[in-house]
Amino acid sequence: MSPEQKYVVGVDLGGTNLRLGLANRDGALVARWSCPTVGIRDPKLVVDLIRDGVDHLGRQASVPRRDIHSIGVGAPGITNVEAGVVIATSYLMGWRDVPLRDLLEAALGIPASVDNDVNVAAIGESWVGAAKGTRDFVFLAIGTGIGAGIVLDGRCFRGAGWTAGEVGYMLLPGTPEVPVGRGQPGQVEEMLGGNGVKSQWQLIWKADATTLPKDLTATEIFDQALLGDSLAIEILRRCAHILAQLIYNIALVLNCPLFVLGGGVGMHSGLRDETQRLLDQWGTRVQPRLALSSLGTDAQLMGAIRLALDIGQSQTAHPD
Amino acid sequence: MSPEQKYVVGVDLGGTNLRLGLANRDGALVARWSCPTVGIRDPKLVVDLIRDGVDHLGRQASVPRRDIHSIGVGAPGITNVEAGVVIATSYLMGWRDVPLRDLLEAALGIPASVDNDVNVAAIGESWVGAAKGTRDFVFLAIGTGIGAGIVLDGRCFRGAGWTAGEVGYMLLPGTPEVPVGRGQPGQVEEMLGGNGVKSQWQLIWKADATTLPKDLTATEIFDQALLGDSLAIEILRRCAHILAQLIYNIALVLNCPLFVLGGGVGMHSGLRDETQRLLDQWGTRVQPRLALSSLGTDAQLMGAIRLALDIGQSQTAHPD
Repeated sequence: MSPEQKYVVGVDLGGTNLRLGLANRDGALVARWSCPTVGIRDPKLVVDLIRDGVDHLGRQASVPRRDIHSIGVGAPGITNVEAGVVIATSYLMGWRDVPLRDLLEAALGIPASVDNDVNVAAIGESWVGAAKGTRDFVFLAIGTGIGAGIVLDGRCFRGAGWTAGEVGYMLLPGTPEVPVGRGQPGQVEEMLGGNGVKSQWQLIWKADATTLPKDLTATEIFDQALLGDSLAIEILRRCAHILAQLIYNIALVLNCPLFVLGGGVGMHSGLRDETQRLLDQWGTRVQPRLALSSLGTDAQLMGAIRLALDIGQSQTAHPD
Repeated sequence: MSPEQKYVVGVDLGGTNLRLGLANRDGALVARWSCPTVGIRDPKLVVDLIRDGVDHLGRQASVPRRDIHSIGVGAPGITNVEAGVVIATSYLMGWRDVPLRDLLEAALGIPASVDNDVNVAAIGESWVGAAKGTRDFVFLAIGTGIGAGIVLDGRCFRGAGWTAGEVGYMLLPGTPEVPVGRGQPGQVEEMLGGNGVKSQWQLIWKADATTLPKDLTATEIFDQALLGDSLAIEILRRCAHILAQLIYNIALVLNCPLFVLGGGVGMHSGLRDETQRLLDQWGTRVQPRLALSSLGTDAQLMGAIRLALDIGQSQTAHPD
């Protein structure tokens, strides 16, 4: 970064929203901008939106474009970080082999870096979040889908084909014996993802068993469990059991001492507490500590800012 | 290694046998020695045996002790490689926190290096075996117990507490919902380990269903499956299904393109072929290639030799 280039942009690109942050070289946010992306699938339109966002951020913070050093992006799909190519996203965007880095560099005239959104969130938590100072940990994003960002020895581990951490497809006691086909939600997602939790609730819901409505979100169900509804407690316990099994299996492979839980479903303290209780009860072979994401919905944004700051530097997950 | 120190010793230390190899600086074996270790638990006695073995090797190959540069050991338990301490072995040896490296260096007067036996086997396969030239792979040892040696980006990955790869305890469809307690065989070992395969056979064995005896080893059962016995085919299919689930789950986490199968049960080509068929049939999310160990029972010995050669050099799994 040259002395006059004092800023970077981080981008959290999702299937429903685009969120940008302008940060100084210490990583402190000085401006934010966001817009919906529902229905926008064409990569060129997405890049145009990002360019508009960068312009907005510059005006908002009175930072001229020439003072912006680089841009980092978390993309919702399998990403070849070396080539800067988004290999595949879910059906929402339907991308295949999109050279996002090149598109951004051509549109903005500054260096860009692209990575998978869950990996980027892990990098954010590693840098300034719940995993700060921990060299080995797993970030588990539990929302509609489920995925893991793996940091080993201070570096994000992405796998030989860039798909490490696809743990939403894991086979566990209680899942079908055979993996699901392509394009379908994973077995663990079907039970522990946002829609999975709702479906479980609706399956056991009976008007005479609870005073709660049949239509509740995963988070609302967990809230009601903490308030004492016995049917909601049943769902929370099931979900914690599945999450504990998932974490146990990952910990057997990686021997990671810390799991950071993020995403709309994963960040519920009731789920964390019950899952930790189960893991502790199961004994000492692997006893990972569970922490809630401390960055919340900003984990990806902060990780993307770290990506941008790292351009031209070594690619550690956090620089200390 | 000084110019006159032309040799290293590799040690495969097991619960039933101790095997030593003397190799030149290119890793070529010039002498072997072995002895039983049944009933020998005292670490000092084991070190005495190793010293005797080194003396035997020297006489056998007419190599004076001063020409031996270093010694590498694969130990049957959780090992802190940095400290050279065997943290815990199974009940066979019952070791807890044995400073094996220091004991060896004091007894032999040469530098020593110690690692877990499965990791050492993975290093052997990486260096001169079935995984040569592959930077990311998992070595699966399937014998009485089951464990994985994980090589990522050319380096053996051991985990924050030295227990990465304890996959014999994984929770899968069909296993109990809750992990087994300390000191018990893992859930996958109970089904896929040598004794587990025998138990499965004895459970479904009926005199009118097969002409084969009730008392067969895992390998004999797999052999008979390839010869067409329908009951043995049933066992082989069950084992392949469990192994495919185990590999699928590990591959979801690590995105490793290659699994090398070793150990008395794991090295059966019938098991490999049926497992590969299942993984291929399950589709394209993760499609690891399965290879049989090419070093067989020498994988640990060769890995231990590599450990010895690496002393004073950087600790890559293979040096190319």
